[in-house]
Amino acid sequence: MTKYKAPHAMPKPGAEAAPAQARPAFDRKNMILRVSTALVFAVFFLSLLYWGGGTTWGNLAYFALMGVSIFAGVREITLIGRKMGFNPSLYAGTAVAWLLLMHFFLAARAPLGERPLDPDLLPLWLALAFGIGIIHFGALFFDQKMEQALPSQAITWMGALYMGLGLGFQQRLFMLGSSTVANTGSRMILALYLITWLGDTGAYFIGSFAGRHKLAPRVSPKKSWEGLAGNYLGNVLGAWLMKATGVCPDWSPVDVVALGLLLGTVGQLGDLVESTWKRSAGVKDSNIGIGIPGHGGMLDRVDSLVFAAPAMFAYVHYVHGLG
Amino acid sequence: MTKYKAPHAMPKPGAEAAPAQARPAFDRKNMILRVSTALVFAVFFLSLLYWGGGTTWGNLAYFALMGVSIFAGVREITLIGRKMGFNPSLYAGTAVAWLLLMHFFLAARAPLGERPLDPDLLPLWLALAFGIGIIHFGALFFDQKMEQALPSQAITWMGALYMGLGLGFQQRLFMLGSSTVANTGSRMILALYLITWLGDTGAYFIGSFAGRHKLAPRVSPKKSWEGLAGNYLGNVLGAWLMKATGVCPDWSPVDVVALGLLLGTVGQLGDLVESTWKRSAGVKDSNIGIGIPGHGGMLDRVDSLVFAAPAMFAYVHYVHGLG
Repeated sequence: MTKYKAPHAMPKPGAEAAPAQARPAFDRKNMILRVSTALVFAVFFLSLLYWGGGTTWGNLAYFALMGVSIFAGVREITLIGRKMGFNPSLYAGTAVAWLLLMHFFLAARAPLGERPLDPDLLPLWLALAFGIGIIHFGALFFDQKMEQALPSQAITWMGALYMGLGLGFQQRLFMLGSSTVANTGSRMILALYLITWLGDTGAYFIGSFAGRHKLAPRVSPKKSWEGLAGNYLGNVLGAWLMKATGVCPDWSPVDVVALGLLLGTVGQLGDLVESTWKRSAGVKDSNIGIGIPGHGGMLDRVDSLVFAAPAMFAYVHYVHGLG
Repeated sequence: MTKYKAPHAMPKPGAEAAPAQARPAFDRKNMILRVSTALVFAVFFLSLLYWGGGTTWGNLAYFALMGVSIFAGVREITLIGRKMGFNPSLYAGTAVAWLLLMHFFLAARAPLGERPLDPDLLPLWLALAFGIGIIHFGALFFDQKMEQALPSQAITWMGALYMGLGLGFQQRLFMLGSSTVANTGSRMILALYLITWLGDTGAYFIGSFAGRHKLAPRVSPKKSWEGLAGNYLGNVLGAWLMKATGVCPDWSPVDVVALGLLLGTVGQLGDLVESTWKRSAGVKDSNIGIGIPGHGGMLDRVDSLVFAAPAMFAYVHYVHGLG
């Protein structure tokens, strides 16, 4: 409990005597840095969605973006694991996560009809079978800390699954095709990010200004019930905006509410999951080494998305019949 | 290094002064128990293969056998993890492993042509997406040892993947159909077990009687180069027997050698992997609690099979075009 400190609870110069239970202060400097970085990324990302949707170069650019993000995320999980005294493999974890991403890339090509791809090129079962070999057999030859063999190999697997599946489903969403709406994939990704981001934003502002009742002190000390409400408000608002602006014209009101609540729930739980990992290692944010200015580490940015992406794909697959 | 003791290196009453490096003694009593248990299982198992192959009740009986074995194996991994101070979830691990098994069961029905099953009923990606929710979200609500959240959840995942994939591929193999040879699935399972078992047996006898040169003292102190040679001899002999007796009449000599070497290699590496896990927890065999008389725990029995089954499925899928 005492090892982990929420950023807002950190003592500031001249404020050493501030009571620990006080409402978190609004951090203006960090917010400016945070917004600036987000704007730069947003311009790049929205350009990719607008011009790259449904094109081969767009698919490949998204693949590259996911690949780099996967490496950064697996690296953070590896470093958190090492900080706890284990010896997960960055190489094996990244390789298996990339195999999973490659599966989702190849599995998504066929529906687009660009060229008839053999669905047997890299089925998910084969990617996982290779993963068994890479992670477990790799450890036999290269792990120099065999007394932690079980947890080390387990953490390697989890990092590979967490980043590979989470971002692999994003790749699959981006490459979705539909016979009725052009560039469905880009629209789904925009919805995924906007719903998640407005939820995070709603939780941040309402939680910062009005957060009084602790939600899950055992798991994440800074979360409040007020923030939770703000999160859901933001989620549903995001989904409604997608429909209202015509980006997702075929969404029904049920879709708007269902997707808002679904992505909000798994996104917030995903956020809590990552909090428990960080707290178990005694780190403040996932950024061990390089990070994203104002945004902590890669894990802090993707923690909601990695759980929201599979949920969204499952929803549009089974409810809307896509992919 | 010193925590783990190979069974044969354990001091016996009246033999306290035996040098630690001595050639392991042949343990007659354990061998009788081991063979008896194996015979009982063999009668049951061969009956299932002979009469149950290609039938619905056979598929369901195999499914039940795999389901029970999965529970026992996940339980052992969970207990080994707990012995190391972590808190993996037996319920979550078993549930996710069963979901994976269910996927392989459902994915295998269609080729048999019994009835047209929707391949979308439980695709592997959906089983994994549910796994994310069950393992990570479950830990948020039920894990009382949050300071080990990262390794605990990771070990839960690894147990689910290890048993669920390893035994799921067996289910898929058992239910394989072919237009040229009847009951292909039963034949493949018989080949998988015979090749693996003759390899283990060859390694055990040649290693026990002639083992002098240590193979991997860092990983498993009792393995020898002589045992390795015995293992490969047994593997290829097993594959040759399958062809010679007409059980697998369409195997070429290349298939015999390739399958013998492939299953032998992944099987032995798999055996080493499980050794490192046990040694890292300081346990002698995987049997913590109930076990199989003379055979240690469930993990000790399946450690070669869980890696050999995916390799065999991949081979017959891509080389022979099955499944």
